[in-house]
Amino acid sequence: MHYPDHLLKLIQLLKKLPGVGNKSAERFAFHLLDWSHKQQEDLASLLTEIKEKLRYCEECGCLKGEAPCQFCHAPQRNKQLICVIAAPRDVYAIEGTHEYKGLYHVLGGVLSPMEKQGPEKLRLQQLEKRIATHQVKEVVLALDSTLEGDATALYLKKFINAFPAVHVSRLAFGLPIGSALDYVDGGTLARALAGRSHY
Amino acid sequence: MHYPDHLLKLIQLLKKLPGVGNKSAERFAFHLLDWSHKQQEDLASLLTEIKEKLRYCEECGCLKGEAPCQFCHAPQRNKQLICVIAAPRDVYAIEGTHEYKGLYHVLGGVLSPMEKQGPEKLRLQQLEKRIATHQVKEVVLALDSTLEGDATALYLKKFINAFPAVHVSRLAFGLPIGSALDYVDGGTLARALAGRSHY
Repeated sequence: MHYPDHLLKLIQLLKKLPGVGNKSAERFAFHLLDWSHKQQEDLASLLTEIKEKLRYCEECGCLKGEAPCQFCHAPQRNKQLICVIAAPRDVYAIEGTHEYKGLYHVLGGVLSPMEKQGPEKLRLQQLEKRIATHQVKEVVLALDSTLEGDATALYLKKFINAFPAVHVSRLAFGLPIGSALDYVDGGTLARALAGRSHY
Repeated sequence: MHYPDHLLKLIQLLKKLPGVGNKSAERFAFHLLDWSHKQQEDLASLLTEIKEKLRYCEECGCLKGEAPCQFCHAPQRNKQLICVIAAPRDVYAIEGTHEYKGLYHVLGGVLSPMEKQGPEKLRLQQLEKRIATHQVKEVVLALDSTLEGDATALYLKKFINAFPAVHVSRLAFGLPIGSALDYVDGGTLARALAGRSHY
């Protein structure tokens, strides 16, 4: 018993989405079948247009629509503060805190020897140019707390050391807010201890 | 901070998929952005074509491609045995067992007063006609073990009683294979006890 050809192709494509296995892809496909023709057409035309309508700012690498970049062209943003992130989507998490008023710089990935991703694939030259042009005072490294994130942070620290006037910082590690001490893993607790502050 | 227009629309559409909330829809959308143009086009054209290329068999209601229905037109299938299912996707689960060699009949839903789905919305007339035409001997009710599934099964039992020669059966309830007794819920255990068989 096989799925009809079109359904099978749809399921195989949907399986490429992150975290979507066979079962979920099947559920999604049957659900999409039940959508109205209008909804199916809407999704199809969005997919056809995204590459064209969604562009990346040439300066910072963030996603932008057809308007100019909302960060680089915002007069109230502090141009001497740059937050380095791995991917464009990380912006939305940081903006959600309403705590950051500087600019961003998308690296386009992290260093990963396993995936043959070396420094030449990251947007480092652009970062260098921006630091020099805007007399940047601080670069905040907002990278994942993983092996790759740590390696990239270390590399960037050395890279930016070429500008002695620039202060390099990294997001704090410690207990997540609302967490119970006995549920927190050892690694996190060790970092929280090492980074303890006067209270 | 807002998502660019196109991205927002994409996220809102993806949220309509079953079990997909805000976070997953965002992940999917950013992932779709990273797909190659070819993949995006493939998914878009599949979505545009599914309504046209995937049809339902007029007899049994199962999905079929452009070929004739693989059940109704299969000579080796037992035409006097009909398995009643709620939706076309249920076929694939039953076919996966390789245990069933009869035909199917898709109801197109279950009775649900909450969702204002009464018997007039189910494919009952077609079922009646098939039972009469093919001298059906047994109708197997393969419906969910939920309140709505139970109500629909009861309704169908009475409905098919108009044909005294037709035997109506329902899938067995009991312990799932591989389950440990102390993990099984009380309702399931009660049904397993009531349905115990000579061993």
